[in-house]
Amino acid sequence: MSSIFTKIVNGEIPCYKIAEDDQFLAFLDINPNTKGHTLCIPKKELDKIFDLDEELYIGLMCFSRKVAIALEKTVPCNRVAISVIGIEVPHAHVHLIPLNKMEDIRFVAKEKITAEEMQQIAQDIASNL
Amino acid sequence: MSSIFTKIVNGEIPCYKIAEDDQFLAFLDINPNTKGHTLCIPKKELDKIFDLDEELYIGLMCFSRKVAIALEKTVPCNRVAISVIGIEVPHAHVHLIPLNKMEDIRFVAKEKITAEEMQQIAQDIASNL
Repeated sequence: MSSIFTKIVNGEIPCYKIAEDDQFLAFLDINPNTKGHTLCIPKKELDKIFDLDEELYIGLMCFSRKVAIALEKTVPCNRVAISVIGIEVPHAHVHLIPLNKMEDIRFVAKEKITAEEMQQIAQDIASNL
Repeated sequence: MSSIFTKIVNGEIPCYKIAEDDQFLAFLDINPNTKGHTLCIPKKELDKIFDLDEELYIGLMCFSRKVAIALEKTVPCNRVAISVIGIEVPHAHVHLIPLNKMEDIRFVAKEKITAEEMQQIAQDIASNL
């Protein structure tokens, strides 16, 4: 069965899209740690980040860097953190999380953000790319 | 004042070293989330990961990938996670954390590991590089 992220890549599940090229996709995490929390994924469905060959890995990390720099310009924060965990969805993904305090990285307390705000944030980050 | 990591690079503070080249250094986190928790840093003291120019950033992420693959071979785990936070030490660093459960990523519960075990783990990871 396809991962939830492959379904997003294929348009079977909607997302708040930020950026896309032939190999990678960036969209807002639907259950964000903080406002602007973004996921960057390879379109190819591979479970673990270190399953990606070096070229695809470098591509994903560079794509994530571009999105993170746009995110830093858009969402006021101390810095944008990177987190790659992958236990919950078996499709490699890079979390980019605007941080102000250590708690923001912990995947425990989540922010409630309306659909309208999510749409606006995605659009604002995309416009800073 | 130099960061604690610059002091490690300069040999003023000891570390459990795993790998080193002219630009990067990998060593065990002295306060590990889990056994084998490793830090990879650029020797150049830059605060935020996205302060690194693209070339140095790619270099750091590739160096971290090599160390992570050796770490996966050494420490039994579900996968090795990547985390870049940076609020506590203003010198960019990539955490590589052997994970078995979501809690392992949270920087809350820490493992107590003896100096002898730390030395042995560092040596074992280095031998898998």
